Amino acid sequence: MHLKRSLLGSNLDSQSDANICFLMLYVTQSKIPGVGFVKIHAPWNVLCREAEFMKLKIPTKKRYEVKQSRGFVEKISSLVSKVLDPLHPHVEDHQPKNIKHLSHTFSREKQHLVITSFFVLSRKYFGEKIGLYFAWLGLYTQMLIPASLVGVIVFLYGCATVDDNIPSMEICHPRNNITMCPLCDRVCSYWKLSTACGTARASHLFDNPATVFFSIFMALWAAMFMEHWKRRQMRLNYEWDLTGFEDEEDHPRAEYEFRVMQKSMSKDQKSQHKIGVTFAIVFGVILYRISTKAALHMSSNPTTRNNVQLTVKTTAAIINLVVILILDEVYGAVARWLTVLEVPKTDKSFEERLIFKTFILKFFNAFTPIIYIAFFRGRLVGRPGSYLYVFESYRMEECAHGGCLMELCIQLSITMLGKQLIQNNLFEIGVPKLKKLIRYIRSKQGAFQEEERQKKLQRYETDHFLEPFAGLTPEYMEMMIQFGFVTLFVASFPLAPLFALLNNIIEIRLDAKKFVTELRRPVAARAKDIGIWYNILKGVAKVAVIINAFVISFTSDFIPRMVYQYMYSPDGTMHGFVNHTLSYFNVSHFQDGKETMDPLHLGYRVEICRYKDYREPPWSDTPYEISKEFWTVLAVRLAFVIVFQNVVMLMSDIVDWLIPDIPKDISLQIHKEKILLVDLFMKEEQGKIHILESRPSTGGKENCSRSNNNNSTVAHPRSGLHTNSTKSF
Amino acid sequence: MHLKRSLLGSNLDSQSDANICFLMLYVTQSKIPGVGFVKIHAPWNVLCREAEFMKLKIPTKKRYEVKQSRGFVEKISSLVSKVLDPLHPHVEDHQPKNIKHLSHTFSREKQHLVITSFFVLSRKYFGEKIGLYFAWLGLYTQMLIPASLVGVIVFLYGCATVDDNIPSMEICHPRNNITMCPLCDRVCSYWKLSTACGTARASHLFDNPATVFFSIFMALWAAMFMEHWKRRQMRLNYEWDLTGFEDEEDHPRAEYEFRVMQKSMSKDQKSQHKIGVTFAIVFGVILYRISTKAALHMSSNPTTRNNVQLTVKTTAAIINLVVILILDEVYGAVARWLTVLEVPKTDKSFEERLIFKTFILKFFNAFTPIIYIAFFRGRLVGRPGSYLYVFESYRMEECAHGGCLMELCIQLSITMLGKQLIQNNLFEIGVPKLKKLIRYIRSKQGAFQEEERQKKLQRYETDHFLEPFAGLTPEYMEMMIQFGFVTLFVASFPLAPLFALLNNIIEIRLDAKKFVTELRRPVAARAKDIGIWYNILKGVAKVAVIINAFVISFTSDFIPRMVYQYMYSPDGTMHGFVNHTLSYFNVSHFQDGKETMDPLHLGYRVEICRYKDYREPPWSDTPYEISKEFWTVLAVRLAFVIVFQNVVMLMSDIVDWLIPDIPKDISLQIHKEKILLVDLFMKEEQGKIHILESRPSTGGKENCSRSNNNNSTVAHPRSGLHTNSTKSF
Repeated sequence: MHLKRSLLGSNLDSQSDANICFLMLYVTQSKIPGVGFVKIHAPWNVLCREAEFMKLKIPTKKRYEVKQSRGFVEKISSLVSKVLDPLHPHVEDHQPKNIKHLSHTFSREKQHLVITSFFVLSRKYFGEKIGLYFAWLGLYTQMLIPASLVGVIVFLYGCATVDDNIPSMEICHPRNNITMCPLCDRVCSYWKLSTACGTARASHLFDNPATVFFSIFMALWAAMFMEHWKRRQMRLNYEWDLTGFEDEEDHPRAEYEFRVMQKSMSKDQKSQHKIGVTFAIVFGVILYRISTKAALHMSSNPTTRNNVQLTVKTTAAIINLVVILILDEVYGAVARWLTVLEVPKTDKSFEERLIFKTFILKFFNAFTPIIYIAFFRGRLVGRPGSYLYVFESYRMEECAHGGCLMELCIQLSITMLGKQLIQNNLFEIGVPKLKKLIRYIRSKQGAFQEEERQKKLQRYETDHFLEPFAGLTPEYMEMMIQFGFVTLFVASFPLAPLFALLNNIIEIRLDAKKFVTELRRPVAARAKDIGIWYNILKGVAKVAVIINAFVISFTSDFIPRMVYQYMYSPDGTMHGFVNHTLSYFNVSHFQDGKETMDPLHLGYRVEICRYKDYREPPWSDTPYEISKEFWTVLAVRLAFVIVFQNVVMLMSDIVDWLIPDIPKDISLQIHKEKILLVDLFMKEEQGKIHILESRPSTGGKENCSRSNNNNSTVAHPRSGLHTNSTKSF
Repeated sequence: MHLKRSLLGSNLDSQSDANICFLMLYVTQSKIPGVGFVKIHAPWNVLCREAEFMKLKIPTKKRYEVKQSRGFVEKISSLVSKVLDPLHPHVEDHQPKNIKHLSHTFSREKQHLVITSFFVLSRKYFGEKIGLYFAWLGLYTQMLIPASLVGVIVFLYGCATVDDNIPSMEICHPRNNITMCPLCDRVCSYWKLSTACGTARASHLFDNPATVFFSIFMALWAAMFMEHWKRRQMRLNYEWDLTGFEDEEDHPRAEYEFRVMQKSMSKDQKSQHKIGVTFAIVFGVILYRISTKAALHMSSNPTTRNNVQLTVKTTAAIINLVVILILDEVYGAVARWLTVLEVPKTDKSFEERLIFKTFILKFFNAFTPIIYIAFFRGRLVGRPGSYLYVFESYRMEECAHGGCLMELCIQLSITMLGKQLIQNNLFEIGVPKLKKLIRYIRSKQGAFQEEERQKKLQRYETDHFLEPFAGLTPEYMEMMIQFGFVTLFVASFPLAPLFALLNNIIEIRLDAKKFVTELRRPVAARAKDIGIWYNILKGVAKVAVIINAFVISFTSDFIPRMVYQYMYSPDGTMHGFVNHTLSYFNVSHFQDGKETMDPLHLGYRVEICRYKDYREPPWSDTPYEISKEFWTVLAVRLAFVIVFQNVVMLMSDIVDWLIPDIPKDISLQIHKEKILLVDLFMKEEQGKIHILESRPSTGGKENCSRSNNNNSTVAHPRSGLHTNSTKSF
């Protein structure tokens, strides 16, 4: 009875107790100790009435064909699907045989675990809500294919042009003998710019004009993806007969009613704390990195020093990853705790608030270190002679020559790959398996003749050992963070879509496997859309435009190069760019106690060293002041951000406006169905007139009951069958 | 019969010819020659079926009260409405007497021409579409009240602080003896900065820190207005029983079908031309202004010269206004012509395309001169010694000292006031009156004993002399352009909302008068929303954020003042700002033939004159090069644009997110109605069970007809009465 009530939702009032007599309850004897199963049998008329409540639709008898408008896009997509055909295991769609296969269930067959057609089957078995998740995941993965293709082309362009890149050529040139200022106080010494040759060459891979194009492309890609999803959702709504379906108002949650009764609605005022903790931890990581670097620099062993950069970067990135993974779990709990404190009224609002909080926390968790590297590393360094110090002893980190883009890349790839491989795939499959094992062992301890029983267990008893279904939130969350990696910093890491694509191809299969074999079959739920996730996607896509604009203009050297080429270069080429970006420093101006202990490290006495900044030389009227070039470059950088942001936003709006939300064939289909309905109605009307003509009027009441009788025949068309008088639910 | 068909829409097929017998046609003898009237009488059952098609709803018998949640906002609004009470003529709402009054019609009573309650009555008389227009206009006007209040406060703040403004004090100070470079070649001479005192003081009225606050306020105001309109629309949809209503698919237009038959779909490829013409004309206006100015400067009469600035500005603004008014009509015709060329498929798409084209053309027509003054005047001037010339003889215009903001103000106020007064009110009322007169005179020429007939004319015959209804497009268009004036350049003209408010108070009355007394009663049309106009509003609000950001940072002197105060000022005050913004020019560097003819105009020999720009002085290494200060100010300006745009957009999104789209009482009401429906349904169900119990089953067919019979009783609740089987239209 409890199950039945929960299925019916809020529509059952006290009057509905009359229906109990319709349900037949069988209590079956379970072979598992402590667990009982109740089998419920609902007769046809009870099911019919529930179908009316839920506005389920019945197919029409009359079938009609709608002409397919085959545009250019569809031709391409059919070509793509032909090319990708080997990737899709052969599944005969819409065949009852297949559906039977899947609903036979918990079978370990891999036949159905395909990218794009799984959602058709999953809807039949899991209900529309999970069906929509797989449909969304399928579309996302499909859309990642062109994105990763273009990303790879951009990366290859970087590889191909690395030898033509004048700034890295200048840095690597053997005749280049620019002496750089020490990177840390006292223990570090002067160094030759040519030692940064490798880094400079590597950063060209990710910092070339093609990345600008790619980040515009990805912003439009995101807009296109949203639009395509809207259309796909519309199509699914139509195909799954959800066009008239509206979300029911939820019950108030039991906890909410309890708390209202207690009149102790404690408000959430502690979320500031949590965000504080996040920043504290992130700051801790920054401190670690500064100290590690200083310590490694301290050892004057030259071989160590060569490996310093790479070691620190990589270990720091890995530590970051571990911290992110641990905090991810912590934040999940924190978000849940905060939402429980808030006591939202309905289950739906509870879920939405929880999702929103979790997303914000996990998003900042995943992206804070990356944002730090992209926008704050190497900005607040100060200058030789007056460096900025944290806690009076730690100098702020500097980036290696060639911008912070390289480090951003390393951090991004390690976080992204690590998060996906470890958290998503290992955890997602490993943990349920482990839990299943524990559950199995536990029940074994209580039972004696386990093996005998095992053979006799009913299917619902074996299923009971599976992990219960915990909702789609973790699955969506993971994909949202991935979407963030794909769009937010794509200007600095064009391979992100490729990694995401590879992950998702595995992910779909693992998810499907998990849902079918590792979890109890979830209660089917209907849903018209993916709810709050769509808004989150939209938000991420919006933020991505701004972040990409800033990455291109501030993290990469794109703007300074442009400014040099068109404003300062004597011959209109990039020759002399490296020299132009380096300022002069007179060694005698070092603060006392800060100068290097090994001034003759390079073998000669250094009087003037160089550092990467736009400042006046020591011999100018205003030594070490910020120079005119700095302001020029800054102005151009900011102008670029404005132009980029507005142009991309405008283009996204145009994409949004050009692609209609409802696919043309679906709107045509709906229109034809309407006409069909009117057609039928008119026929009925005519029939009525004939009857009226043949038989003179016998009173209004007769007429009324007849017309109602007619309607019960009319009401068959597919788009129109919510049976009488329940249609406005 | 034709009228009937057009009312029924697309639902009538060939089968419906059977219905003709239901309609009774009376051909009445008209007293106007050449005009015939047909009176159609449709019996009750035909009307009922049409009501089913149109999903009209019937009120429930059961009434219930929904508790009003009186929040803080509602308290304020009730306070506001109390304060404004004297403004509203006393109309007894929802009283049948009043409705009868209005539907008695074409009466010249002014009782109903009220701001906020007219739409309630207008819906009953004109239909939902026109009702929505008046509702929208009412809300817009209401929302303008706080905006204009704040605008006036900002303006008064400017007035109050004008004497404390250090830059204008410095300019006006008698000891100030800065010699400025000539404003034009040869005929102009050097001038004292102190003569610009008046302009400098005036521009402070519109260029003070409060304007920055005001433009942020107005951006949020626009977001708030959108949200409120969404809510109001939702409420009206509920109150006018449109919740289940969906726009019908239109017929293809007759012109479309004709053209498709001809297979000569000529595409619109000439719109570029038209935009070209716009720019050509605007450019012509600019040229006129340059030449007028030069001519006026040429006359060496000192009194003329003093009046030069104001005369030119005002005459140019008036000429601009006339050009705008003429072009507005031209553009309306051009847009219609272009849309006809495009041959859109349905009437709805025709209307939408026409509106979009007309809006774009009229918008650019109204705002091009203003955009020119705000962003291009005085930017491309060059510098003394190498001015920029158009056509080799006309020097580009400079702004008076104190920024172009003052001129922008004059242009804005003249365009706005002029457009509103002349075009909207004079034309709107005058032209229909004129046309009515012409129509009347024409029909008089053909008739003889007019006076006798006049007395005997039926009401529908007198109505025939009125102007036919031409759609709501001009009314909405006018308001959209006004919304543009209110939001786009509000940073430079805080009084715009006040002017708009004053105009609208008249406008509503004039519109209502026009609709009731000057136009034939339009065919009532249902509409759920204001359609494309909402998107246009949204677009204008988006553009407004960016334009305001640019006005504040580039047109006003806000940013240079800030930069001076925090970066260059020796004592942290504004003292010395004027001197800082002026560069030095050595008179001997004038090009040959360009130097002034009257070098001793000021009574002494000038060697160094000053001009408004950030350039290096003649004695620096790089004379007349753009200076570091210029780049600093530019960078800060651009940074301000980025910060302003993103902060305001974020705040707008938050406003959008915080205010729910559906008012809480409406959603509660809908929820309660659902419960009521379930309640009724359950009672019916129970009744059925009782009958079943008392009488053993006599077969499925009996059961079916009975349940249908029950439903015809159930189907009364207000939210659910589209009678059976038509509900999916």
